[in-house]
Amino acid sequence: MEHIKIFKGDIIFTERPEVFTTYKDGFVVVKNGTILAVYKDIPESYKGLPVENHRDKLIIPGLVDLHVHGPQFDQVGLGMDKELIDWLNIYTFQLESKFKDVEYAKEVYTRFVEALVKGGTTRVCIYATIHKQSTELLYDLLIHKGIGAYVGKVNMDQNGGINLQEDTLESIENTEALIKKYKNHSMVKPIITPRFAPNCTTALLKALGDLAAKYNIPVQSHLSENKKEVEWVKELFSDCSSYGDVYNKYGLFGQKPTLMAHGIYLVEEEIEMLRNQEVTIVHCPDSNMNLASGIMPTRRWLNEGINIGLGSDVGGGHLLSMTQTMVRAIQNSKVLQSITGEKSLSTSEAFYMATKGGGSFFGKVGSFEKGYVFDALIIDDEKWTKERLTIQERLNRFIYTGDDRNIISRYCNGFYIK
Amino acid sequence: MEHIKIFKGDIIFTERPEVFTTYKDGFVVVKNGTILAVYKDIPESYKGLPVENHRDKLIIPGLVDLHVHGPQFDQVGLGMDKELIDWLNIYTFQLESKFKDVEYAKEVYTRFVEALVKGGTTRVCIYATIHKQSTELLYDLLIHKGIGAYVGKVNMDQNGGINLQEDTLESIENTEALIKKYKNHSMVKPIITPRFAPNCTTALLKALGDLAAKYNIPVQSHLSENKKEVEWVKELFSDCSSYGDVYNKYGLFGQKPTLMAHGIYLVEEEIEMLRNQEVTIVHCPDSNMNLASGIMPTRRWLNEGINIGLGSDVGGGHLLSMTQTMVRAIQNSKVLQSITGEKSLSTSEAFYMATKGGGSFFGKVGSFEKGYVFDALIIDDEKWTKERLTIQERLNRFIYTGDDRNIISRYCNGFYIK
Repeated sequence: MEHIKIFKGDIIFTERPEVFTTYKDGFVVVKNGTILAVYKDIPESYKGLPVENHRDKLIIPGLVDLHVHGPQFDQVGLGMDKELIDWLNIYTFQLESKFKDVEYAKEVYTRFVEALVKGGTTRVCIYATIHKQSTELLYDLLIHKGIGAYVGKVNMDQNGGINLQEDTLESIENTEALIKKYKNHSMVKPIITPRFAPNCTTALLKALGDLAAKYNIPVQSHLSENKKEVEWVKELFSDCSSYGDVYNKYGLFGQKPTLMAHGIYLVEEEIEMLRNQEVTIVHCPDSNMNLASGIMPTRRWLNEGINIGLGSDVGGGHLLSMTQTMVRAIQNSKVLQSITGEKSLSTSEAFYMATKGGGSFFGKVGSFEKGYVFDALIIDDEKWTKERLTIQERLNRFIYTGDDRNIISRYCNGFYIK
Repeated sequence: MEHIKIFKGDIIFTERPEVFTTYKDGFVVVKNGTILAVYKDIPESYKGLPVENHRDKLIIPGLVDLHVHGPQFDQVGLGMDKELIDWLNIYTFQLESKFKDVEYAKEVYTRFVEALVKGGTTRVCIYATIHKQSTELLYDLLIHKGIGAYVGKVNMDQNGGINLQEDTLESIENTEALIKKYKNHSMVKPIITPRFAPNCTTALLKALGDLAAKYNIPVQSHLSENKKEVEWVKELFSDCSSYGDVYNKYGLFGQKPTLMAHGIYLVEEEIEMLRNQEVTIVHCPDSNMNLASGIMPTRRWLNEGINIGLGSDVGGGHLLSMTQTMVRAIQNSKVLQSITGEKSLSTSEAFYMATKGGGSFFGKVGSFEKGYVFDALIIDDEKWTKERLTIQERLNRFIYTGDDRNIISRYCNGFYIK
């Protein structure tokens, strides 16, 4: 029994999107980082083992951010006066070009990783930049920190401007080198990351699809975020029947586990491919509002059977907080409700997206069911709250009004994160 | 010169909505709480006087929240699964009925006032509840704290349910008693507060209009927040030509300075009255999203010449933060931009609404121009930010990503707030 850890507290999680599962003064029993069971009362066989007692605190799954740009942490809250393509060209590509300088990258990435973990994110899918050395540094910072991550060296060999564009071959070589270096790491792994279709030649897309297949590596990119972007893709890839088809043609659309950020303006063909090829859409509501991209019809995509996770999308989004991202997802769906009558997201649905839903990209992550790894946050809410409210109401209040100050401990894969 | 205070730092404010005014290492000279001037370099005549040096900190006007329900601080982040009328009946009216108990009120209001000030709000228009004693307590807490406020004892003599409804005469008497008690206070003053048309008989509305006229007291209420609410008002007041006309008929629509919260679904007649009778609309974007009320067409109302301020609308809104309220106002306007093409709000426009725009309800408040009272916040942003960014970019970053931890000092009417 020596590898068993028992955590006691007010436990809440979502097995299904529709409903919260709660245990007042419950116990999570963890063996070698994996959950054996959750109990209302501790069974006889475990009695006598030490218990980490988080009395009156909430114990919730660690939060999963499926879409964030590490370098753009340097521009949060800035340059919010443009829509996507101008925002990229005028602000973002200028910023990212600075990450050629490893010292610059180190300063930003160090702050980024600290803030990410402080905010309660324990699993994350990150876009770095095109730069190999800076990206290695980000891998190493995350490994040192102990959270779970997919990190993509960004690939872009066209339309990046003179400072943020790679030679096609160099792009492929650097990507493969990073894959070889990190593919066997248990917690921080590579992900194929064509920035978005307009930034990639067909030669590059084909090579990236081949790398994904060769090394069995997942894929992430952007899809149908902005109307002008969709038009541009149509012009650039006139032989493809849709934006999604560009990726699909090159083995980058569900042939390996795939994340596609945004997916606001999807056509029927894409919806079918997303469902049938089990591509996860990452909803980034703050970013969609900040860049005036539009509102993702979340309920419609859910009804279509598409898996949806949540992303902060810093720097299009301005906050790393996944709780505020949940709130914004709910708010976005309520704006649609006020226009179309479509049923908005419930808190449990948004919470599911940022825990078990998004966590599924990492394996058995994001729930406290048997067999899941123990990723968890300990939440200290205000004294008066505990006395008056149910566990579910307390979680609601934390989601809507809490911040990193309420998170007093973080665990990933069973380990305490310092 | 003994009553002169000089504040030094990186000063930023909005004289006009379109543009920020900034002074790097500038000086604000304040005499008896009123600003004499802002300088890039301190004139000879002031040399030798002590300077409060906030080197490398931002100095910005204190923030103005034109619409917040004090008691609902007790339900922030809860009950967000309903639209307006159900939300009021099922959650809010139950909660507010508890404020009959002064001890209960004291606990909530104490926390409310603390949180309000901590978040940087230095001027505020508050709805209390129908209860006289609890409302007095709120006045006294605010007076003790030293911020500027209008506090309304809420009036409602119909459709409040058995626990939250007053006798008409009692409602009027209690309102008049509070007016007499507080009308001559310099910082915390009464405001006539019919909850919203559906909660008031015509007898009550008439009496409230008379009180406003008799004592020269401003007015606040709710207007056209939700489609069903608008329909309901039409049924209840079938003799009135519009929702706004209900208030107007009884002298509650600009006959004295008036705030109307929301104003999403305005008709032509209302727009004209709002403009001609100089009624201020209070935009509460978080609340509008949380209660699926809809999106206020901010740009259209601005183009119509209507003055607009911002409100947190806690508890329909979930945060007291006026910076996050600015962000949400901008985001709301960008959602509309993505649908209708209407130009979204700039950061300076949103900042103006929460400072000089909203502040105008209190007199010369919300700017650092000559003759304005010194309401100010000292903002400590991160070290790396100061080195790289302009003052305007730093303010942008504070607005989008900052919180109460960045606010290191608060002043209202020239006084430091403890």
